[in-house]
Amino acid sequence: MVGASAVPGKWGFTILFNILNGGFTGKIFPVNPREKSIMGLPCHASLMDIPEEIDAALIVTPAQAVPAVIDDCGARGIPYAIVITSNFSETGREGARLERIVIDKAREYGMHIVGPNTMGIFSANSFLHALMPTVQPLHGSVSMLSQSGNVGAEMLARGLAEGVGFAKFVSSGNEADITCVDYLRYFGEDEATQVILAYLEGVKPDADLLSVARSVSLQKPIIVVKGGRTRAGEKAAASHTGAMGGAATIYRGIFRQAGMIEVTSSQRLMDSARVFAHCPIPRGNRVAIITRGGGWGVMAADACEENGLVVPPLPQEIINEVDTLLPPYWSHGNPIDMVAVTAAEPFLKCMELLTNWDGVDAVITAGAFNRMAVTYSERSRVPAECRQAMAASGDDRFATVFAALQRMIAETGKPVIDVMLFPREEEKNGVPGYRPVSFPNTDRAVQALTALVQYGTFLKTQGAAAGIS
Amino acid sequence: MVGASAVPGKWGFTILFNILNGGFTGKIFPVNPREKSIMGLPCHASLMDIPEEIDAALIVTPAQAVPAVIDDCGARGIPYAIVITSNFSETGREGARLERIVIDKAREYGMHIVGPNTMGIFSANSFLHALMPTVQPLHGSVSMLSQSGNVGAEMLARGLAEGVGFAKFVSSGNEADITCVDYLRYFGEDEATQVILAYLEGVKPDADLLSVARSVSLQKPIIVVKGGRTRAGEKAAASHTGAMGGAATIYRGIFRQAGMIEVTSSQRLMDSARVFAHCPIPRGNRVAIITRGGGWGVMAADACEENGLVVPPLPQEIINEVDTLLPPYWSHGNPIDMVAVTAAEPFLKCMELLTNWDGVDAVITAGAFNRMAVTYSERSRVPAECRQAMAASGDDRFATVFAALQRMIAETGKPVIDVMLFPREEEKNGVPGYRPVSFPNTDRAVQALTALVQYGTFLKTQGAAAGIS
Repeated sequence: MVGASAVPGKWGFTILFNILNGGFTGKIFPVNPREKSIMGLPCHASLMDIPEEIDAALIVTPAQAVPAVIDDCGARGIPYAIVITSNFSETGREGARLERIVIDKAREYGMHIVGPNTMGIFSANSFLHALMPTVQPLHGSVSMLSQSGNVGAEMLARGLAEGVGFAKFVSSGNEADITCVDYLRYFGEDEATQVILAYLEGVKPDADLLSVARSVSLQKPIIVVKGGRTRAGEKAAASHTGAMGGAATIYRGIFRQAGMIEVTSSQRLMDSARVFAHCPIPRGNRVAIITRGGGWGVMAADACEENGLVVPPLPQEIINEVDTLLPPYWSHGNPIDMVAVTAAEPFLKCMELLTNWDGVDAVITAGAFNRMAVTYSERSRVPAECRQAMAASGDDRFATVFAALQRMIAETGKPVIDVMLFPREEEKNGVPGYRPVSFPNTDRAVQALTALVQYGTFLKTQGAAAGIS
Repeated sequence: MVGASAVPGKWGFTILFNILNGGFTGKIFPVNPREKSIMGLPCHASLMDIPEEIDAALIVTPAQAVPAVIDDCGARGIPYAIVITSNFSETGREGARLERIVIDKAREYGMHIVGPNTMGIFSANSFLHALMPTVQPLHGSVSMLSQSGNVGAEMLARGLAEGVGFAKFVSSGNEADITCVDYLRYFGEDEATQVILAYLEGVKPDADLLSVARSVSLQKPIIVVKGGRTRAGEKAAASHTGAMGGAATIYRGIFRQAGMIEVTSSQRLMDSARVFAHCPIPRGNRVAIITRGGGWGVMAADACEENGLVVPPLPQEIINEVDTLLPPYWSHGNPIDMVAVTAAEPFLKCMELLTNWDGVDAVITAGAFNRMAVTYSERSRVPAECRQAMAASGDDRFATVFAALQRMIAETGKPVIDVMLFPREEEKNGVPGYRPVSFPNTDRAVQALTALVQYGTFLKTQGAAAGIS
């Protein structure tokens, strides 16, 4: 790591801190001419002094010093450099000239460059957290390519909070050598990667992007946010990564042809990652809805229709069966409103009926797990014995319902998307593979399901659906 | 409270529990023929046995028993009843007949009825939490009318988590007597109410709704979600509240004419409540954006343009001033990307320039307060002295920045909407009045600002903007 620093507040300090904090399994050699040791590691004055073979150099020096470091890398036969340093082509003509020098040298040495102007990379399998932000991502099956460091950092941090684990991450910076198309191709081949997220600003909407993205999409889903969809956004992007944007409709066409799922907010990118990591791909767009409360059913049905999903009528034979499970004033249709029934058994029996109903491809539940927590203030006049009675009545059926729904999803191949007001640790963490996935409101639940349905439609029209999870 | 219960799991138990837990300032008389006392309160066999004057009856008996209870209310001269009991007009012809009997009796006695089929009411000033859900709402200046109990409960619970306090809440149920138009008129006159939220499913789109909503909107904002915008949603709504929906475009027209702000998700309803409770109303749709990172600027600019907001170019005199505050490679435009500058002073100086710039009506900030928390795992290789150095470098400037922004908002009358990855307790709670309001992503920040701008436009075109906060 060239430009490592012993001074808190300097980026060289923060990144080395993050690498050590992540528990990187390899060796780290800080390089800085003014220090003898940094964070307990012996420090070398130059790359040339390091006594071992080096796999990659992480460069955090001032921009003017980078060409000389690349020369050292070339002399040492280092095949990869991650250039965190900014002030290259993104800042104008002088920076572009310097970037050209760096890249020409790298080509000469047969080196490849991440960046410059990158926030770093992350790789779960070697515990390599070579990032500017202090976030230590959760490990999992999602990989992300970001043409914005802070949008990428937002996703890693939010994933940690929402239970989305990452396999690989790269902030691609100015992409002077390795480009976003290269990263897409790599994620497509990477076995640890099951879902790909991309935040793109400046990418040529050409045949190369289309063909690589299309062939990757046939293997695994790519969900993309394109920054610079509008004139205002495009202007902002031009000053940011130094790359030119382009007409939104051209991108939209390419994304659609390539089977990439376009969303327009970081929240939807994250929500899509969660469902793709844990849901089977639905075979169509028909949705059953079951709720503990009519309003959620109405909001979910509206959102479904507004997003191109279909809420088909309940067949008479299912109505007859549900009649034996719920009070006579249940909704008698799809959505099934269970009215005020809070027990687990009738809900799970209804879910058996709905997941096995061949008229639908997915099920949305609202209130499947809900347990309203009781808080007591100083003003509370509730006597102690009633507090005990209330606590005892709060039968927590989370584990039972979760396991039953997992089984139904595995047996029927239909996703179950849930609305749960507040996330629970049990739902967020751990459990890999197929499972119900919860969102805090109907809008996000339906949007996430829509992404799954769009991808299912792509696979179906490509006749290549077999074997994709 | 008629139909109060000593049995946990029964709704009569839960509601009485919630009333006591909320610390209601008035007297409560449980009524149940089979109990001597409930939750430490003496229990009466009938309304007729209560030895004091009664202001309101809360009814939780089976539906068939409600007419007789109304007779008792009439005999006692009770002016209001809240009928929690369901199984009335929402369940079909027989229920409708029973509901008619109840309402005819109430009219005869000069009584007014909330419901039936309501989840209850909440009033902050008497600490009355007469609700089926156990949520104890935060107290504040937002009032809500909900034609769905569970959508309403979601908002109260989410408000508690997101720092949105309520003055009044009503789940209006079947509206057999008091209707949503009555509640709107009441909230319009209520001094404790500054912002009105409504979830509507079945409301006649007539001149009465238009004229009441319009006259209230001129005093305070009404933000509405209309359930049943689509055919699927309308069908679901018909089976839910027993009310007929109607064509979405008719409602949209009425909402627009009345100055009501329509949103389509519960999250946006909540987000709107937060900004209306704490932001001045902007005088136009022009937005300055300042970020610590280019990607957020791009995403915010895209979202602004997609929502009809304008991101005007930065005038040369502001560019010249910012040149003295930021490194030479800052974005030189709107959005201002502060690149990797993390100090508070240059940010606040830029904010002075932006809030005082007469070319914009609002400012969006991203990363104003951000402080990335560091976590340490078992794998961490960071030595103790570096942990200390890292902790010491994490200068927390929250209070300084918050106070400075509060002052700028008050002085310039321009809202400041912030993007903060994770909410902080200091930001969520307490501070009433004008202040910066934070959202976890650019999308929600821009949507919330858009609601403010829409309302500002309504007031401006009505020439009635004076004195509205």
